[in-house]
Amino acid sequence: MSGIQKAACIGGGVIGGAWAARFLLGGIDVAMYDPHPEAERIVGEVLANAERAYGLLTMAPLPPKGKLTFVKTIEEAVAGADWIQESVPERVDLKRNVITQIDAAADPKALIGSSTSGIMPTELQRDMKHPERMFVAHPYNPVYLLPLAELVGGQKTSPETLELAKERLAPIGMKGVILKKEIEAFVGDRLLEAVWREGLWLIQDDICDTETLDDVIRYSFGMRWAQMGMFETYRIAGGEAGMRHFIAQFGPCLSWPWTKLTDVVDLTDELVEKIASQSDAQSGAYGFRELERIRDENLVGIMQTLKASNGGKGWGSGKILADFEKHLWAQGGAKKEAPDLSQPLRLIDTKVSAAWVDYNGHMTEHRYLQVFGDTSDALLRLIGVDFAYVEAGHSYYTVETHIRHLGEAKLGNRLYATLQILSTDDKRIQYFSTIRNAETDEIVATAEQLMLHVDSKAGKSVAAPAEVLAKLKPIADAHATLPVPDGVGRSVGQKK
Amino acid sequence: MSGIQKAACIGGGVIGGAWAARFLLGGIDVAMYDPHPEAERIVGEVLANAERAYGLLTMAPLPPKGKLTFVKTIEEAVAGADWIQESVPERVDLKRNVITQIDAAADPKALIGSSTSGIMPTELQRDMKHPERMFVAHPYNPVYLLPLAELVGGQKTSPETLELAKERLAPIGMKGVILKKEIEAFVGDRLLEAVWREGLWLIQDDICDTETLDDVIRYSFGMRWAQMGMFETYRIAGGEAGMRHFIAQFGPCLSWPWTKLTDVVDLTDELVEKIASQSDAQSGAYGFRELERIRDENLVGIMQTLKASNGGKGWGSGKILADFEKHLWAQGGAKKEAPDLSQPLRLIDTKVSAAWVDYNGHMTEHRYLQVFGDTSDALLRLIGVDFAYVEAGHSYYTVETHIRHLGEAKLGNRLYATLQILSTDDKRIQYFSTIRNAETDEIVATAEQLMLHVDSKAGKSVAAPAEVLAKLKPIADAHATLPVPDGVGRSVGQKK
Repeated sequence: MSGIQKAACIGGGVIGGAWAARFLLGGIDVAMYDPHPEAERIVGEVLANAERAYGLLTMAPLPPKGKLTFVKTIEEAVAGADWIQESVPERVDLKRNVITQIDAAADPKALIGSSTSGIMPTELQRDMKHPERMFVAHPYNPVYLLPLAELVGGQKTSPETLELAKERLAPIGMKGVILKKEIEAFVGDRLLEAVWREGLWLIQDDICDTETLDDVIRYSFGMRWAQMGMFETYRIAGGEAGMRHFIAQFGPCLSWPWTKLTDVVDLTDELVEKIASQSDAQSGAYGFRELERIRDENLVGIMQTLKASNGGKGWGSGKILADFEKHLWAQGGAKKEAPDLSQPLRLIDTKVSAAWVDYNGHMTEHRYLQVFGDTSDALLRLIGVDFAYVEAGHSYYTVETHIRHLGEAKLGNRLYATLQILSTDDKRIQYFSTIRNAETDEIVATAEQLMLHVDSKAGKSVAAPAEVLAKLKPIADAHATLPVPDGVGRSVGQKK
Repeated sequence: MSGIQKAACIGGGVIGGAWAARFLLGGIDVAMYDPHPEAERIVGEVLANAERAYGLLTMAPLPPKGKLTFVKTIEEAVAGADWIQESVPERVDLKRNVITQIDAAADPKALIGSSTSGIMPTELQRDMKHPERMFVAHPYNPVYLLPLAELVGGQKTSPETLELAKERLAPIGMKGVILKKEIEAFVGDRLLEAVWREGLWLIQDDICDTETLDDVIRYSFGMRWAQMGMFETYRIAGGEAGMRHFIAQFGPCLSWPWTKLTDVVDLTDELVEKIASQSDAQSGAYGFRELERIRDENLVGIMQTLKASNGGKGWGSGKILADFEKHLWAQGGAKKEAPDLSQPLRLIDTKVSAAWVDYNGHMTEHRYLQVFGDTSDALLRLIGVDFAYVEAGHSYYTVETHIRHLGEAKLGNRLYATLQILSTDDKRIQYFSTIRNAETDEIVATAEQLMLHVDSKAGKSVAAPAEVLAKLKPIADAHATLPVPDGVGRSVGQKK
């Protein structure tokens, strides 16, 4: 995946700031131009949210964070950038002027994407000298988590530009979806607008309140749409006969009086007040930042669930996350510094996420073994037993584990895990891992484990190849000089 | 929660059959009336799907499945039923006649819900003698997983009926959402209809194909709506200033040309063929049953994720699942038969779900400990250490675990776990659990574990109370006469 080398963000509100966060966490330097006096604070807050979310999202090694620079002019921002993202307010004249100014200063090969929610790219590229590299890249809030960018070209955009934009977004975990033709509001916002209009009527006419409307969505089709969208869902509803049968059955509803869409609701002060106070009753118990945090944790959990779907091959946004992680592992392996062998290897830094705790906020028992397993995996990658190695048919399997629980980990605690090799031979690695609280350095749990090198198709243990053993040896040799940790060799309940 | 005692299903297609499945898996006997010659096969298929999904959904003890009877008349079906669900085809005359017939034969206190997608209850209850107990209970496919039922009363429906319906649905894991007024298509289908209309235009006009449209939904707002709905999402988009700010900012879009909603698309043969062939290209690689399975596994995963959300308190549909499980545990405890103490206790029956496996379809290491942890929890409930006990401030904590991996568990494998107590005192329980493949009876993994009774607020071990020890003693005494299992007392890597 050939990615972005340097990005410029023109406009740093909620959307522009979140684009910057995605670029930075993807290891890309960002120059930000935004004349708003509080731009630096706002971008900083969005970036902090994004970092927290990424800490929960993936165990894959994120690249070193890119460098964020605030600059005073558009010209400074776009200098040297190969991707420029415009996210200024939604006014056609303003956007067109900014884009024309970007065009004049940027490298003619740099791609220029607009975050507009609805203006057609033909309108925006009108006055450009190099309009062929300009397009709409419309993201969805929170941009650092939701993978979609609608890619829309105008009359002067070259088809190669859209393909190149799609390719460049992939390494930062984004999915560029190319539309065939431009249209106001593109695809997503047209669908959202339809629901919004109908929803306003339902509130206006007191059919339900905002909380009921949200419950109707999230207890039903919201969950369907998180993973299959509309047509695939209806295909299933059509049964064996699929889409044709579904349309035959439900097509006639189109002419029934099932919507008020032909009228536009009048947004009177009274209606605005009704919606706002219903929304306060519904969500007012949570502060804005708290709702954001819950939303982000839910989105992370949904994507992780979908990553495991379809027999582990991934589904929907989970497939995109899986691809993103494969890319991170491939990158991470290449960039890794030589480890410090004079002490146990620090292999995992993580945080106790909402999905890991019971109703009391304590980390669930099996999540400890998940962290120990991730620690083992990190050792394996260090000695060349990575995704490609495993796919080629060999691996190390855990055969025996002894865990001691010596402390508690709670929601939000930062943890780290170290690993010390105890003994090895050509098939076996016996080692001792320790999970500590990163703030207090207290030991939370330890594990002694034994892994065996296996031929996974034959289902039997075999000697590891020389190149793996050669990477393992210096670590094992260095660790042989370390003191044996307390707890090694224990059986359950053994008196000390 | 005061639930349904006996249900009647009038109409057994995809919706009626899935209602039946929800009732049956909730322990409720169902009488089914459907003159369709294949009704029994169709209901059987839906029920098989539902059972597979529930096997993945929850570890809580489902009640003994209700009894399903196919009957020849509506009168037979409704005899003795306190909930009657009408799910016949969507024609007002047909539905009205069936409901009038139900009304004449049923106990006047029995509740009568209609599954109609859009007909107003006032239309349906017109000719009833006891119309006050009739309402719309509109569910969403798959009815056995999605928790929503829109509850809508007509002019003659009593308000008590809707409250009672809501109360009776809760014990089967359903959320009745009461609308304030009746309107054609209620809330959910109006919103869906709006998106469907706009979506048809986008396909008709070649803005995108069905796959792109679905991707736009599922990579973006589909995930937002699975957990927060529309108004709560927009509240966040409004930032600190919330809903009022959001409307001020985006309200004007309503008057922009962002939808084609004022026209209705003409469903020509050509358009139907275009949609159907695009849908084949998008989803044709998966069979209908395979898509259903993937959908159900994804929905299960999303609900489980949301159950752990909000610091373990649950969020959206995950909160409903948590409440459902609490109810199941409470019920399960009451109905439990005395365990057979002449052998290790069989405490867990489960199945390797999609969320449990790696990309090779093998059960991930830490999921073994999850099953062992669930096994421990089942023992604890048996001796009175249940949810209420833990909430009151005491519990048993695992302090030490030794696991041996002796076989492999793969996606879809059915597993069961047994537990044998090795030794106890007033604070400690040491025990040995075994996970076996339920088809081959081969041992997959074993665990020796030590638990300590603790005062969780004080954070120290204390003696368990007499009533807990009294329940523990007969099990421990009986297990003391069993042979010591192979593997007890091992340390990691110990030569045997």
